[in-house]
Amino acid sequence: MKALVYYGSGKISWEDKPLPKIEHPADVIVRISKTTLCGTDLAILRGGVPTVQPGRTIGHEATGYITEVGPAVQDFKVGDHVIIPCNTSCGRCDPCRRGLHSSCERGGWLLGNTIDGVQAEYARIPLADSSLFRIPDGVDEEAALMLADILPTGLEVGVKRAEVSLGDALVVIGAGPVGLATILAAEFYSPARIIAIDLDDNRLAKALEIGATNIINNKDGKAREKVMALTEGRGADAVIEVIGNPATFQLAQEILAAGGRMANIGIFHKSTELHSETLWTHNITLRMGVVDNSTVPVLLKMVQAGRLDPTSLVSHHFHINEILDAYEIFKNAAEEEAIKVVLSTDAAKKAGSGVSNDNEFIRQIVGRVLASL
Amino acid sequence: MKALVYYGSGKISWEDKPLPKIEHPADVIVRISKTTLCGTDLAILRGGVPTVQPGRTIGHEATGYITEVGPAVQDFKVGDHVIIPCNTSCGRCDPCRRGLHSSCERGGWLLGNTIDGVQAEYARIPLADSSLFRIPDGVDEEAALMLADILPTGLEVGVKRAEVSLGDALVVIGAGPVGLATILAAEFYSPARIIAIDLDDNRLAKALEIGATNIINNKDGKAREKVMALTEGRGADAVIEVIGNPATFQLAQEILAAGGRMANIGIFHKSTELHSETLWTHNITLRMGVVDNSTVPVLLKMVQAGRLDPTSLVSHHFHINEILDAYEIFKNAAEEEAIKVVLSTDAAKKAGSGVSNDNEFIRQIVGRVLASL
Amino acid sequence: MKALVYYGSGKISWEDKPLPKIEHPADVIVRISKTTLCGTDLAILRGGVPTVQPGRTIGHEATGYITEVGPAVQDFKVGDHVIIPCNTSCGRCDPCRRGLHSSCERGGWLLGNTIDGVQAEYARIPLADSSLFRIPDGVDEEAALMLADILPTGLEVGVKRAEVSLGDALVVIGAGPVGLATILAAEFYSPARIIAIDLDDNRLAKALEIGATNIINNKDGKAREKVMALTEGRGADAVIEVIGNPATFQLAQEILAAGGRMANIGIFHKSTELHSETLWTHNITLRMGVVDNSTVPVLLKMVQAGRLDPTSLVSHHFHINEILDAYEIFKNAAEEEAIKVVLSTDAAKKAGSGVSNDNEFIRQIVGRVLASL
Amino acid sequence: MKALVYYGSGKISWEDKPLPKIEHPADVIVRISKTTLCGTDLAILRGGVPTVQPGRTIGHEATGYITEVGPAVQDFKVGDHVIIPCNTSCGRCDPCRRGLHSSCERGGWLLGNTIDGVQAEYARIPLADSSLFRIPDGVDEEAALMLADILPTGLEVGVKRAEVSLGDALVVIGAGPVGLATILAAEFYSPARIIAIDLDDNRLAKALEIGATNIINNKDGKAREKVMALTEGRGADAVIEVIGNPATFQLAQEILAAGGRMANIGIFHKSTELHSETLWTHNITLRMGVVDNSTVPVLLKMVQAGRLDPTSLVSHHFHINEILDAYEIFKNAAEEEAIKVVLSTDAAKKAGSGVSNDNEFIRQIVGRVLASL
Repeated sequence: MKALVYYGSGKISWEDKPLPKIEHPADVIVRISKTTLCGTDLAILRGGVPTVQPGRTIGHEATGYITEVGPAVQDFKVGDHVIIPCNTSCGRCDPCRRGLHSSCERGGWLLGNTIDGVQAEYARIPLADSSLFRIPDGVDEEAALMLADILPTGLEVGVKRAEVSLGDALVVIGAGPVGLATILAAEFYSPARIIAIDLDDNRLAKALEIGATNIINNKDGKAREKVMALTEGRGADAVIEVIGNPATFQLAQEILAAGGRMANIGIFHKSTELHSETLWTHNITLRMGVVDNSTVPVLLKMVQAGRLDPTSLVSHHFHINEILDAYEIFKNAAEEEAIKVVLSTDAAKKAGSGVSNDNEFIRQIVGRVLASL
Repeated sequence: MKALVYYGSGKISWEDKPLPKIEHPADVIVRISKTTLCGTDLAILRGGVPTVQPGRTIGHEATGYITEVGPAVQDFKVGDHVIIPCNTSCGRCDPCRRGLHSSCERGGWLLGNTIDGVQAEYARIPLADSSLFRIPDGVDEEAALMLADILPTGLEVGVKRAEVSLGDALVVIGAGPVGLATILAAEFYSPARIIAIDLDDNRLAKALEIGATNIINNKDGKAREKVMALTEGRGADAVIEVIGNPATFQLAQEILAAGGRMANIGIFHKSTELHSETLWTHNITLRMGVVDNSTVPVLLKMVQAGRLDPTSLVSHHFHINEILDAYEIFKNAAEEEAIKVVLSTDAAKKAGSGVSNDNEFIRQIVGRVLASL
Repeated sequence: MKALVYYGSGKISWEDKPLPKIEHPADVIVRISKTTLCGTDLAILRGGVPTVQPGRTIGHEATGYITEVGPAVQDFKVGDHVIIPCNTSCGRCDPCRRGLHSSCERGGWLLGNTIDGVQAEYARIPLADSSLFRIPDGVDEEAALMLADILPTGLEVGVKRAEVSLGDALVVIGAGPVGLATILAAEFYSPARIIAIDLDDNRLAKALEIGATNIINNKDGKAREKVMALTEGRGADAVIEVIGNPATFQLAQEILAAGGRMANIGIFHKSTELHSETLWTHNITLRMGVVDNSTVPVLLKMVQAGRLDPTSLVSHHFHINEILDAYEIFKNAAEEEAIKVVLSTDAAKKAGSGVSNDNEFIRQIVGRVLASL
Repeated sequence: MKALVYYGSGKISWEDKPLPKIEHPADVIVRISKTTLCGTDLAILRGGVPTVQPGRTIGHEATGYITEVGPAVQDFKVGDHVIIPCNTSCGRCDPCRRGLHSSCERGGWLLGNTIDGVQAEYARIPLADSSLFRIPDGVDEEAALMLADILPTGLEVGVKRAEVSLGDALVVIGAGPVGLATILAAEFYSPARIIAIDLDDNRLAKALEIGATNIINNKDGKAREKVMALTEGRGADAVIEVIGNPATFQLAQEILAAGGRMANIGIFHKSTELHSETLWTHNITLRMGVVDNSTVPVLLKMVQAGRLDPTSLVSHHFHINEILDAYEIFKNAAEEEAIKVVLSTDAAKKAGSGVSNDNEFIRQIVGRVLASL
């Protein structure tokens, strides 16, 4: 089979690899149907994720069909159509029993990190019963693919940990794929305002299209003043930081209202400055964490009910054999107006040949929205 | 009347001042019966609280009897025996309606800060209906005095915001008056372990006496290792930091388990380093805030039920005229084995003449406890 | 002034009465601008509310302008434009401090019950500071009027107590004004399905128009089977009963899923049969209560943000002098397609002369919706 | 092996049966070490549990050692010392993922109900990985045995669902084994009062010994008045009903304060009268359910920490061969002063030969407690 293999900073290769085999009784083998690229994959490519060793097949978001099941697998059988989420968990250890699947003693982020991942034609998935989710009939496969990581991340790590509530002024800092997924998830909790902040007008237009009530391009460094103006000087009840750098973390602290909650989805590579000297009188809550994928079932229900359409976050389609091209597009997301890039392993109806930018239609809609403001 | 007046860094004076008058319709005047000293008063004395201007009567914890009520006061009358809590609030503004009395738009920490305080024979208390608490018959006045600040602070800012839960391993960093009050409050929620960390053996012995299950003197800098050993390497489910300096904040982060909650009661004077680079995978919650005094009624119930005895935190008694001596003792808390220092305005039964160290009896008990370990 | 006075079962009169006066320092006098009729008023008219004595001015939902303030009133002044909610509360007693304003020791449902109400040109409102809500500039007065009772009732007593959650199957039994308000409020919490049950096709069409995903006319007594079919045999995660009779209470129990929550808004006049013999294995929660009006501020924010339009529940407009005609319409709600009937005291732009049925436009929209199914 | 077999109303036999075998890959076989009798077993014996068919081995609370594991079992091995809880669950179905293990689609109450139970020398336990709990070194086996049903039932179905909170007035109706376990669990949440109601003075004395603050023998039918007197006329914040009959359910409703929460542990055999006509103004919550055993791990932590000693609920010890004698004692619990009756299969140190009433020591302690009141 073919797989995308990481060989150290800057080096990836689409090459032949042996088919994966059942190694533990709870494993299954999945023929990958669709997979997608994540910002974390770019971080790996830059050499920034030391747990990923050369020779590793990367990728941690996919859908596919089960081709083989280990002897301990009880809930899945060959042929089942499944979401492979980024997180693997046993469901029985102490953290799992407390709902903290991302801290699973036997799992966590394994795929494309410490074991071979899913940017490949086949993948071995450990702890299948407690990690995979069956795709119900009638659910669009690309919608399901968006539930492998970005939607549950936005919902669990962002919206729930920031306790987004009815009537809140919410700020989402960062309008890339995860920031946009966060906005979609935030709407479920009916904040009065969703203010998106980014440096890229295209992404902000997309934010507006999918539910943001206000957008701020912080190129001029005036995001703080603008948020304060939009909130009568009180600041935001909830802030979700999706970038993970010192400047956005600083901004998040500055715009947080008394009693406010901040959730960090952004991945930090070094320590940050916390303004304890002012926040201690401010009654604030700060949360940091990673996704448990525990909300995949409820997100599937919302897709089935027609109340969530995460395919609006898909910007490009490729055949899996074009994966190196897809990486080029994704690395230049701003210029290419890329959000989520979907790779299909077979001649699925949406799989293009060569680059297919789906943004034209979106651009027209956003044009009309912006024109009407 | 006499009052303790602040005149700039290092300067306080016990001197004559005019009797306070009703200034707003919701004010009352209270004849102070008992008051006590707070670590924050020492910070003021060091010039470290810029909102406190020279000429200000300080003090924000007291009990007393109402001598005059403004025309808008509806719930209190002359002669009522009350707790004057550190926080003043209107109960009707938006933050108050959301339970965030400490961010009250008309109140907050006023007493001994931006208006004259309660280390005096009389004090004017604004927003009386929504700020004062009647002392029920049969409740010891010194127990009530401990409910003006340290018990609600320990409970609200520490225990509740750290979500101390059944079976938790809890660490309390700092075993001064507020840390000890935090331990008393934490017991209500039945953690499996309460580990107290301090540098003062006397305070740690007191912690052990009132409910800590383990004590660690961190003079050797090995608190982290010791907490890890006591928690099978997992760390603490809840950490309450009561000191407010960079080193204890660092320690708090290092000993927090995955999924753990940290609450800061300590007052920070500058920013601190947050280890975002490791905490982001750790699913942590950090809260900082100040007391709302919303738990005073339930704490009174527990005192009435005989299930809370905060007088165990009182170490010394003085007549109010000896307040400057009391400050000397409190400034040298370690040497003097001082915890809470109570000042009485009249010949109350416990009011001593000159220094009265109540620690002898405690020391004997603790000696027996330590001997039995 | 004119007021609607109750004189025993079946007897009301629109007649002259003396202007109300300040009786307590916390009172205000309000010139009523708009008021509306409630199902509870019909119950009074039938003689079914024994606390309402002959001679009482009835009505408990209004908006208006303050014309006089008592000496203890601090937050309002003459000329303020306010919502007069059905519930009066002090904000300071023990139940109020615990958020249970409807059990206020000094208040509760007073207006149009134990003191004169608001179906009049003027009304005295006790405990004004803690009971009234200012109408922000730009908020439509009729939207504000809907926040005096039905919207907070639907949200607080229905949606919140049934813990309506993301992805839930929710059933609302009863699609009158409060049931419809409940549906509007339920949408804030993103259930996957909102199934409305009633016996009146017109009300069900309205339910569908404002957000129900499914409607069931239970004339055939098959609501149970239909709900089970819509929920794959599991039943509803949340059921809100808005009628208050034994048959609907029975239905609510039958359609509740394991782990489900039921909230009763309906007013019961006698005891009901609880199926303890089956529900004990079913892990259910049942809540009953009355409105606290604590959500009026957040509902106002949602109106301001353009995310809630409760004027969609207004079906008829009258001048206050036509109030007896309005009662006739409201008593025949099914035939008249009446939902909320608004009475205005002055020549406000929407105040009609004679009956004004606003349903024509709605009917056209619903026709199109139904045609498209 | 020997097993206790049910043969229809009133008929049980201690007789030979074939050793159980692994039937599904997730099964284990456990050699029973200790087991105990439950009120539900008496209900079965009376023919009152129709799901239990003649020929069934009954019993659903035990500890033991694993002697064989199915091929899909991953967390347990031969020799492991385990608690067998009353509830069996898969941990992966929709209810289990929502924490509702008692509604598990593959499990629930199986043991001694729809499959052979644990009043036997050996038992087959399905879904072992997600149902069993390892007994940590140093935990007393009889303490562990109490965690198979009554402690988690008291905690989960009683205390948690009644939301017992700091400072509450709590009433527990019924002071049998489960009521007493509920009192032990309630203390973890620090109510101000725990009022136990029963008709048996011996059980009430035991309640007082283990933590009740007040006891009421309702032989005179004055429990309602006495609870009102103890709560200044407000009633109880939380009521836990452990009997399951119409009279106690009626009492529970009468003593519930405004805003109160009632949890039913008692098993009802027919419907009950709910006083909707008064409770609707009362803001009450009522919950009914069965145990999930999800708190066994935290209860084990509390036992290990020395903060819970459930062996205080064990009144009698027998060898398993004396099980028919044990049933006689347990059927006459009042006369025999029986609470929990422990049966041991081997020469465990506490296993007696013939009846061993452990109540003497308790009686002496209670005598002293009562004498001191």
